[in-house]
Amino acid sequence: MRATLMYSAGDVRVETVPDSRIKHPTDALVRITASCVCGSDLHPYHSMTTADGPARMGHEFIGVVEEVGPAVSTLKRGDLVVSPFAISDNACEFCRENLQTSCSHPEANFWDGIEDEGAQAEAIRVPLADGTLVKLPVAADSALIPSLLTLSDVLGTGYHAAVKGGVNARTTVTVIGDGAVGLMAVLSAKRLGAEQIILMGRHQARTDLGREFGATDVVAERGEEGVAKVRELTGGLGTHVVLEAVGHMPAYRQAYGVIRAGGTISRVGVPQYEDAPIGFGSLFGRNITLTGGPAPTRAYIDELMPDILNGIIEPGKVFDATVNLDGAPGGYQAMDNRENLKVLLAP
Amino acid sequence: MRATLMYSAGDVRVETVPDSRIKHPTDALVRITASCVCGSDLHPYHSMTTADGPARMGHEFIGVVEEVGPAVSTLKRGDLVVSPFAISDNACEFCRENLQTSCSHPEANFWDGIEDEGAQAEAIRVPLADGTLVKLPVAADSALIPSLLTLSDVLGTGYHAAVKGGVNARTTVTVIGDGAVGLMAVLSAKRLGAEQIILMGRHQARTDLGREFGATDVVAERGEEGVAKVRELTGGLGTHVVLEAVGHMPAYRQAYGVIRAGGTISRVGVPQYEDAPIGFGSLFGRNITLTGGPAPTRAYIDELMPDILNGIIEPGKVFDATVNLDGAPGGYQAMDNRENLKVLLAP
Repeated sequence: MRATLMYSAGDVRVETVPDSRIKHPTDALVRITASCVCGSDLHPYHSMTTADGPARMGHEFIGVVEEVGPAVSTLKRGDLVVSPFAISDNACEFCRENLQTSCSHPEANFWDGIEDEGAQAEAIRVPLADGTLVKLPVAADSALIPSLLTLSDVLGTGYHAAVKGGVNARTTVTVIGDGAVGLMAVLSAKRLGAEQIILMGRHQARTDLGREFGATDVVAERGEEGVAKVRELTGGLGTHVVLEAVGHMPAYRQAYGVIRAGGTISRVGVPQYEDAPIGFGSLFGRNITLTGGPAPTRAYIDELMPDILNGIIEPGKVFDATVNLDGAPGGYQAMDNRENLKVLLAP
Repeated sequence: MRATLMYSAGDVRVETVPDSRIKHPTDALVRITASCVCGSDLHPYHSMTTADGPARMGHEFIGVVEEVGPAVSTLKRGDLVVSPFAISDNACEFCRENLQTSCSHPEANFWDGIEDEGAQAEAIRVPLADGTLVKLPVAADSALIPSLLTLSDVLGTGYHAAVKGGVNARTTVTVIGDGAVGLMAVLSAKRLGAEQIILMGRHQARTDLGREFGATDVVAERGEEGVAKVRELTGGLGTHVVLEAVGHMPAYRQAYGVIRAGGTISRVGVPQYEDAPIGFGSLFGRNITLTGGPAPTRAYIDELMPDILNGIIEPGKVFDATVNLDGAPGGYQAMDNRENLKVLLAP
């Protein structure tokens, strides 16, 4: 079968690899019908060394179940399914608390942590298939597929940011980052009732989509200038919640620059740093709460899918290009160049 | 009048200073009847340079109103009052949200931020007296004074940790630090219903008091050994909440070592660091929330005082020595040597 591999920074190739196949009784084999490139895939695209490659890529997909292991009970051949970016049994103590990204099952993992499988491919072996996969009540060629595909990661991740940030009708919100996750955070903040949603981003096509999703203000400036602008928009105080959807240190610094005293910074951009300011001058002195992490998108699918099926939200608008699998390397490049916001792969 | 000054690390003196007096119409002048030395006073006691001294010390007190400015409406000469460690108008947008430590009034400040006043003294000028001070319904020589004095800081600070940490009957809790604030955090976690409260501390007199306040387990080990011990006590998982009442980096590292995935670290020990680990390996990967800050103890007085007056809690047990004002330098030394847990000053 064909699959996408990253050899090192900037070097993505589509190659023939051994066919994925069932290994454990709880596995399913899925023929992928839609996957995509994630903003987080761009982190290794900038930094991967040859020693860490080649790595199979992709953690978001929709596909058709081709075969199930003997212990799989809720799925059958022919089912159309969506997969969260994290594999979980959806049954352990953490899963029951809706923290599937911390599932305690030995086979639980992130797709990015599984050596021989990736979603930017023709097929994939899904461990813990009953827990991980969710059936979709549409056909594989439905016009809703792009929106349903966002349930894998970006919609649930933006929603996780807003939920953990405590967004509600009484909170003002700043979203940092106009990538797909940032735009999903805007949509999520709107869904949770926020009336003022300030989007910090400087790519107009994206911030225009952000306005469509619910942003009330756009701040193109960055750093201290950007912080000053947000403060100006909030009577000098900053916003109750900041949703940080980038992961780089300047975005974190912006976050504590624009947060209101007593407010919450919710991070879903994967931090590209380990140490950062959290002392008296940044978080502690003003009682700032820092929260967030890898989104248990499995937990949010049941809640968000009906809104997609009913046309209430259209998160699939973040896809501005569709290519076939061989187009994956070009898709990475186009996203890295910011020619495309998010590229859908239709193998 | 007599007041306590810190000249530099280890050098505390009681000297004659100009009498405190009313300066603004909203001031009150208070004759101090009880104050104390705080664990946070030991930070400058370890690190202050002569360039930063001499500094007036003390931010916790009970006293009798001697005089009020013409704009003070809720207090009169003779009232016995307690002061939070933060001055606030108790009326601004932040105060109404119970975040008096971020009061937006220009005269709002922490006592430690006011150059010419300190509570380890015979008298003190209290700015924004109507907002800051709370009347006590007892006499200045009541046996309840030590407990009521903890409303200034340590009780409210421990309680803030527990409230911000989201402690309730379904959460397990680790408290890091067996100083007065740590012990108050134990008492607070118990008051909020936690059933398992693990106290990390190695001074037996203190951890014994911690057990009296509600600790179910005591872990004397520190660092990795201590983390392993807490994990052993919690089925390998760690606790839902960690209340960090120290402020040094090793305590913070312990905090993220013993926190359960999805849990909350609530800090009230004033951080003696600015940068610290918050990336994938420490907080982000397991969806850990970090919260806390200077406690708006003003906000908690109305809630906690009745429990003291009714004898339900006895936080004053943290005081294990009482000296007169001239004994302040010895009190610092005794607390620093850990001969005393917390020293009450009765001028």
